[in-house]
Amino acid sequence: MKTGEDRLVQRITRALPFKGLPGLALGAGDDAALLTPQPRQELILTCDWSLEGSHFLRNKHAPDSIGWRCLARAVSDVAAMGGEPKYFLLSLALPATHTGKWLKGFLRGLSRAGRRFRCQLAGGDTTRNNKILINVTVLGEVPMGSAVLRSGAEPGDLVFVSGRLGGAELGLRELTQGPLLSRRAISDRNRGWLKKHLYPEPRLALGRWLAGKRMATAMIDLSDGLSTDLGRLCAASSVGARINMIKIPKVILPKEKGRTRFDVTELALHGGDDYELLFTVHPGQAGNVPSTFQGLPLSCIGEISHKPEVLLVGTNGREERLVARGWDPF
Amino acid sequence: MKTGEDRLVQRITRALPFKGLPGLALGAGDDAALLTPQPRQELILTCDWSLEGSHFLRNKHAPDSIGWRCLARAVSDVAAMGGEPKYFLLSLALPATHTGKWLKGFLRGLSRAGRRFRCQLAGGDTTRNNKILINVTVLGEVPMGSAVLRSGAEPGDLVFVSGRLGGAELGLRELTQGPLLSRRAISDRNRGWLKKHLYPEPRLALGRWLAGKRMATAMIDLSDGLSTDLGRLCAASSVGARINMIKIPKVILPKEKGRTRFDVTELALHGGDDYELLFTVHPGQAGNVPSTFQGLPLSCIGEISHKPEVLLVGTNGREERLVARGWDPF
Repeated sequence: MKTGEDRLVQRITRALPFKGLPGLALGAGDDAALLTPQPRQELILTCDWSLEGSHFLRNKHAPDSIGWRCLARAVSDVAAMGGEPKYFLLSLALPATHTGKWLKGFLRGLSRAGRRFRCQLAGGDTTRNNKILINVTVLGEVPMGSAVLRSGAEPGDLVFVSGRLGGAELGLRELTQGPLLSRRAISDRNRGWLKKHLYPEPRLALGRWLAGKRMATAMIDLSDGLSTDLGRLCAASSVGARINMIKIPKVILPKEKGRTRFDVTELALHGGDDYELLFTVHPGQAGNVPSTFQGLPLSCIGEISHKPEVLLVGTNGREERLVARGWDPF
Repeated sequence: MKTGEDRLVQRITRALPFKGLPGLALGAGDDAALLTPQPRQELILTCDWSLEGSHFLRNKHAPDSIGWRCLARAVSDVAAMGGEPKYFLLSLALPATHTGKWLKGFLRGLSRAGRRFRCQLAGGDTTRNNKILINVTVLGEVPMGSAVLRSGAEPGDLVFVSGRLGGAELGLRELTQGPLLSRRAISDRNRGWLKKHLYPEPRLALGRWLAGKRMATAMIDLSDGLSTDLGRLCAASSVGARINMIKIPKVILPKEKGRTRFDVTELALHGGDDYELLFTVHPGQAGNVPSTFQGLPLSCIGEISHKPEVLLVGTNGREERLVARGWDPF
């Protein structure tokens, strides 16, 4: 009596079984998911596209990585508010040729990410399409009143960023253009770039810690690139910023003679998909920001200013406007 | 400093302004929406694809109708649980050629539907794509413990359906194949089919009433067709059903000599997108189901049986298995 779609849904729910966490009364399989909100928590709701051709390439990205990334992208928005992801909805449109081996790999990556981020499948929608289309909705929680918004930055606040920037962009280039370095220079390092692109780690623990300690006045995740996302945080807060080029933690490239294919500053300023956190801290609190959090470097890269423009201070001390040149589909 | 995507988001949020309903702390424009759950309510979470080529045709469906339908589809899942929609996320992927006039029409229909269903934009994601892709997530509420699931039907329960079935399918054929009837026979009636297809009305008031009175033991909305969705309700409840062909409320076709292009029984059994409610009622309660609810006919079409199969009793009294022949993308 089952339709083709019902069988597909069954394959998905078997790969991502509903564990009956507290708060979820009913998972995938009914008209909708039914959730019992926890007391003294606010809800965080976000969704993200992952489209073939825009966000991944069918012949370059392993299905396992596509599954991981589509959830990581949406979970990162929850991290950027200082929350915990709880449930996700998976909207999946697939060619009929991709409901076998490809789907199995995809669900393996998605399931691994779900366990890693403690985020459980609660429903979704499936249909057929000649291109692979994914949309993931994540519902998260944050203790009442402690969510960190984009809009809370004040002039004088210091600007911090986690991790090193530009690695995911470099990983994408490695994936699409072939090895970036000669065999001689290949080390575990470029595996690192690839991993950063293929299996990004949303900074959940850092986001929760910053929100819990009321350390961050504003926060955003770096999905489209520093130049674009810092501009968004400033616009939401009606402020500007002054950033020091030398202080930006950039991806480290091993030196090779005669090879200058990559400008690490450009990668760090405009490269997308790093999913690091950019946050602002009141100057009186800045001393309490550790230099690393659980092994992840935290760097102060500048400060918030009154004037609504983002300035970049170069190594020669000269200031120029930082134009948003990160990912922009339009 | 704004990117093209930021400007598009601005156009969307201006067309669908955030009204600050109680419960929504923060709408579109941050990393995610922030919601304060209401006391003694459970949350309903659902999402639905609306894809060019599958769910609508760019050159046949007015943008206004595409905007209305994409929200109506997801809201109907909330109706089917007896809940009230509250907020929605809009994921929209568009060709660059469609960010002007087309988008304006789309947002007009979506905004009209949002007001009609009392469901407010709370966020989303936008990107570019050569085909128009839409995914809508709806968050709804239902008083604690009163949601109606698919899985509550018991043998002996009576099976009811709202409205008349097959009209939306007929409207789709009118839209794609041209006028179904000669000029002579055209009346407001086929405007009715078209309207049913283009601007479906999720049965929110009926769903809430049935849940509030604890009248329905199980419920599902008819999105893929009676034969498919009744099969799903039965599978979820581990029961079967016996349906009388003569009792199914079918779309009414004006008689035309020599014209038998449409089998209304086929349309009513397998036609999709009616978004009527199919629900089951304990036999002791069935007398309390009115014949109409706010002008909408409610028809008893059969009963739930032990044996897990769906049988159709023909006009001649003969029984046959009702095979799921509604919409199935796979």
